Amino acid sequence: MRIGELSRRTGVPVPTVKYYVREGLLPAGELTSPNQARYGELHERRLRLIRALIDVGGLSVAAVRDVVAAVDDGSRSVHKVLGEATDPLVPRHPEGPDDEALAGARERVAALVAEQGWRVDAEHPSAVALAETLAALERAGHGAFAEVLGEYAAAADRVAEADFDHVGRRVELEDLVESVVVGTVLGDALLAALRRMAQVHRSSRLYDDTRD
Amino acid sequence: MRIGELSRRTGVPVPTVKYYVREGLLPAGELTSPNQARYGELHERRLRLIRALIDVGGLSVAAVRDVVAAVDDGSRSVHKVLGEATDPLVPRHPEGPDDEALAGARERVAALVAEQGWRVDAEHPSAVALAETLAALERAGHGAFAEVLGEYAAAADRVAEADFDHVGRRVELEDLVESVVVGTVLGDALLAALRRMAQVHRSSRLYDDTRD
Repeated sequence: MRIGELSRRTGVPVPTVKYYVREGLLPAGELTSPNQARYGELHERRLRLIRALIDVGGLSVAAVRDVVAAVDDGSRSVHKVLGEATDPLVPRHPEGPDDEALAGARERVAALVAEQGWRVDAEHPSAVALAETLAALERAGHGAFAEVLGEYAAAADRVAEADFDHVGRRVELEDLVESVVVGTVLGDALLAALRRMAQVHRSSRLYDDTRD
Repeated sequence: MRIGELSRRTGVPVPTVKYYVREGLLPAGELTSPNQARYGELHERRLRLIRALIDVGGLSVAAVRDVVAAVDDGSRSVHKVLGEATDPLVPRHPEGPDDEALAGARERVAALVAEQGWRVDAEHPSAVALAETLAALERAGHGAFAEVLGEYAAAADRVAEADFDHVGRRVELEDLVESVVVGTVLGDALLAALRRMAQVHRSSRLYDDTRD
């Protein structure tokens, strides 16, 4: 197909497609004449991945370049490629002080990882984010909230299982990476909304004296 | 106690305490002389609630005024007070178009609420946020991700149960509201980090060819 058709199919404007080619995110089309190129399904799939990373994941063009390089590097495991695509998506906390609260939280995270048998490094961005949030709870005088951690971890494990059941049906690496990025970002929003709905329901059951 | 002691105990600077009194968030202290007032435990508890709503929940001073008015209004059910405090905490999505994707998403949310037996209005901010997120998935070509919805809802329900088991130990209404606000906001961050950790673990098990 020509660049105009590629643009129509993916919803990405022609100048943006050209920019991605110049920036090395998208391979150039096959030249059919000195100023005309042909694009194929590979380009279409790659463009969808790029848009998911930028629009949904909020990644920078430089970060996208790293992800597509990882996708194209046949020597990297799928696990490594997924890490490259999703590590930048871990919500960053304003880093708190390196105090006792943080030290205690890090120990708690290590204990949780051991309990769950999770293969996750203590320095992984997600483990660091968890420790920072636990430390913030402690500093706000709500350290006792960490008692829910085991239940939360069980729920998160169940969610991750559903996530991978879903994405496991993807055959192409690019489709897999795209699905994981979209599912990671929008899945957090789904989960937060559902948690709020379940809370509203429980609050109504427990505390609504006015209901019939 | 004097205002200086109240400030030390809560970490809220004296001018900020005075500002909250002027704005009607905090009751004035009991005058012991023309320019000295005495504050009690009630003020300390109220100040902690105000700081949790502003620092953790990100509420405006006007929204905090509504919450404390609801706390002080003995005629309102605890359910209504919790709604007043937490409805503004539902993450807002950039509103999408009112298209077929949104109509389908709203139907899906209504069906889910019925299945779960949740007492949640279709116009509640959390139900609207869920529909908007499902519509965004559909528009991004990932509508199939909604298949995970049942598993997500079950996990969210489990988390909400843990949340209310935790806050149910609070006796004072202000402590309850404070706990719910802190737990709602930081709980989302905990859950997102744990989901990421569980995903890393599953990715490693499924896709890491390099592990021993």
